[in-house]
Amino acid sequence: MSGVLTPRDADFPRWYQEVLAKAELADSGPVRGTMVIRPYAYAAWELMQADMDRRIKATGARNAYFPLLIPESYLAREAEHVEGFSPELAVVTHAGGKELDEPLVVRPTSETVIGEYMAKWVQSYRDLPLLLNQWANVVRWELRPRVFLRTTEFLWQEGHTAHATEREARDYARLIHDEVYGRHMSDRLAIPTLPGRKTQRERFAGAVNTLTLEAMMGDGKALQMATTHELGQNFARAFDIAFGSAVGSRALAWTTSWGTSTRMFGGVIMAHGDDHGLRLPPTIAPVQVLVTVVRRSSDVDLVAGRLVEEVRGRGVRVELDDDVDTAFGRRAVDAELKGIPVRIEVGPRDLAHGNVVLARRLDRTKETVPLTRAAELAHAALAETQQGLFELAANRMADRTVDVSSPEEAVAACRAGWARMAWSQLGPEGEARLADHGVSVRCLQTPDGGLPDSEDEPGVVAVLARAY
Amino acid sequence: MSGVLTPRDADFPRWYQEVLAKAELADSGPVRGTMVIRPYAYAAWELMQADMDRRIKATGARNAYFPLLIPESYLAREAEHVEGFSPELAVVTHAGGKELDEPLVVRPTSETVIGEYMAKWVQSYRDLPLLLNQWANVVRWELRPRVFLRTTEFLWQEGHTAHATEREARDYARLIHDEVYGRHMSDRLAIPTLPGRKTQRERFAGAVNTLTLEAMMGDGKALQMATTHELGQNFARAFDIAFGSAVGSRALAWTTSWGTSTRMFGGVIMAHGDDHGLRLPPTIAPVQVLVTVVRRSSDVDLVAGRLVEEVRGRGVRVELDDDVDTAFGRRAVDAELKGIPVRIEVGPRDLAHGNVVLARRLDRTKETVPLTRAAELAHAALAETQQGLFELAANRMADRTVDVSSPEEAVAACRAGWARMAWSQLGPEGEARLADHGVSVRCLQTPDGGLPDSEDEPGVVAVLARAY
Repeated sequence: MSGVLTPRDADFPRWYQEVLAKAELADSGPVRGTMVIRPYAYAAWELMQADMDRRIKATGARNAYFPLLIPESYLAREAEHVEGFSPELAVVTHAGGKELDEPLVVRPTSETVIGEYMAKWVQSYRDLPLLLNQWANVVRWELRPRVFLRTTEFLWQEGHTAHATEREARDYARLIHDEVYGRHMSDRLAIPTLPGRKTQRERFAGAVNTLTLEAMMGDGKALQMATTHELGQNFARAFDIAFGSAVGSRALAWTTSWGTSTRMFGGVIMAHGDDHGLRLPPTIAPVQVLVTVVRRSSDVDLVAGRLVEEVRGRGVRVELDDDVDTAFGRRAVDAELKGIPVRIEVGPRDLAHGNVVLARRLDRTKETVPLTRAAELAHAALAETQQGLFELAANRMADRTVDVSSPEEAVAACRAGWARMAWSQLGPEGEARLADHGVSVRCLQTPDGGLPDSEDEPGVVAVLARAY
Repeated sequence: MSGVLTPRDADFPRWYQEVLAKAELADSGPVRGTMVIRPYAYAAWELMQADMDRRIKATGARNAYFPLLIPESYLAREAEHVEGFSPELAVVTHAGGKELDEPLVVRPTSETVIGEYMAKWVQSYRDLPLLLNQWANVVRWELRPRVFLRTTEFLWQEGHTAHATEREARDYARLIHDEVYGRHMSDRLAIPTLPGRKTQRERFAGAVNTLTLEAMMGDGKALQMATTHELGQNFARAFDIAFGSAVGSRALAWTTSWGTSTRMFGGVIMAHGDDHGLRLPPTIAPVQVLVTVVRRSSDVDLVAGRLVEEVRGRGVRVELDDDVDTAFGRRAVDAELKGIPVRIEVGPRDLAHGNVVLARRLDRTKETVPLTRAAELAHAALAETQQGLFELAANRMADRTVDVSSPEEAVAACRAGWARMAWSQLGPEGEARLADHGVSVRCLQTPDGGLPDSEDEPGVVAVLARAY
């Protein structure tokens, strides 16, 4: 089976590209930096989306849809914002067969257009909080694109909310950060994340505070999985999102924005994949159990069909593979590449003894089990896989994170993993020096791993890494 | 209550615009012809989407995602296709801070880019059928935009499939037409539709056959709700979608494409709305039952809260309206504008007698009912509403469709509704003449309302109407 993929240790980026192609996850699009999300990966994305959407709605937010094309002048409204995006913009100059009077920008984010409508919809304190979310595509011209991780077009959700008070806005941002993003990643993606606060250098333009969740990939690098921004009154001021209070005075709202994207799926590949391919957490696996016919016979066909029904009866997403025109070994390799969590192999020889084989993708173990218990054991193996993947990733993060006391030590440590260093020791100057070595402050934490209220809090720790 | 909306008979287009605004369904976007879909309408769209998605997947199709931006040269691949779209295109000429070597088109449909990848993915007969669907936004520059009905950007699903034989492609197209589109509209949108075949004039560029579902709006005009195209081998030839057969020979595939969009929601508004606002079919109503507190008291609050739970316990989407700071009459008007199917009004006076009031949006009847039966009766009223809206629309379509025997009679009849005329009598010349009067052939049917296999079949009837 070796040789299907370049080993991760030999060349991690190449391994990643091979997994994308061989597991039929994505192709490069016709325009540089764009991607085609193939059905198998898209099905996983839909499962991720459904869970996120449910959690987002549980916070009280409602989905809406805002236009793709934004007048260029809108972006000038928030100057700091434009500066951050300008070289990344794709611009429509012609439409309807002629040159447009004003060029239109393909949204890199909907901050500006949503700000405009929030200002219109918010009049009184009774219109607050206004909690909006949008699932959409956005376009940012990328110089060094990489499928899922950094693409010219990607799919995302962007939340935008307005609140009457700073406290409410802050509490809501933390709810999104913890209960939506944090829980989705731990409970669904089986990816442990480090929650923290961004430094001023890494913060979103216009935000007064950016919360992040950082995950460690298989090569020890960091991936920023989600960010949540407290925008203070900056955006409300730029877009005049103001409300009349109960006593009649007028005040600016406090806003937040928060987003996650198809990049998360790149994180799933790189956090859980091994040298045999993808390993999908069962909760987002389009096929959780594959019942594989080793060789056909009337008995095997009957049993395999019944097993599919029995497994499905347990609420499991199950598929039958009886494509015996393709060699059994090839099918097993494909199922491993695609990261299908559990396979049940049904063959005439085992069946003669009333047995089938249960194969777990998590640790690639195979076990001969009685047919009568196969569905139950497959179901149990799914829960073990979900837990097992989380533990592997958590152990890696723990094992590969070291405490350091100088930028030089940090650079060395970040060749294999992450480094932790007192922020009071490092500071913005140290941060700038590390950047020259490709190492960044992923986030700031309190000593006990919590969210600091400011950079200057005593004991704040900087977590350092190379990052995607 | 009169005066909330312009009556439909007085000015239908104005009534439509007022419903959009007052029911908080949509706003115009900042760029001419675009729209902002507000949360209430978007929630209805999500319910429509979920049902459609389930039906599409039940046919075996899988969702995928293809890029928004398409190289201009791709559209030249299918010349006939380009000709159909060229003035409608929005073109990106600048990105990454400079002019692009090749302009990029914002997809007006993904036919060309999906064709390209289908050609890559289809090699052998074993790769067929390839059944793809995509939920996406598309952009077509509209000269006369109207929110939901004809917008510069809209949301849609586009299905694209490739098959080994003409028969398979045709059967699949009919499955989509009947079981996905037809059933969604009748069973979910409560909109009866006329299924038929498009004339050559109305057919999609490149299609050998276009199937359509046409619905009658409240003003007697037609709205094309969905189209399904049999593309023969035209697209397969243009994009080289070919496969090796079991015996080794190579053949072109047979393809189909099919789409529905947010325009359908415009159809829901115009098919069911009355002079008091929207009337939403319960299956797509974000709020099916509204429990309204008339005046607060501890009894009322307790009962209203319990009622919400009881109604929810029946699997109904229910909300509580206890916003007594807003006048009761105003809240009732708003609920009518938004087309909430059923309201239960809880007030101290009725409650003293153990009663509440059940208000049905369908026919605006109000009935005093025992509190103990309120949840059950509300639940039953939902089913009656779903059925009742369908019947009202079906009766209108029957009442306002007349048989005619000349183009002149057709023009007269189409001022109030639809006309039916023998296609052999009308023909392409008559069709062209009717176009000058704003009347088009919505579809061709067999005498018994079925799908003709060709325009030349004996007895074929043309259904004529003014259309959106």
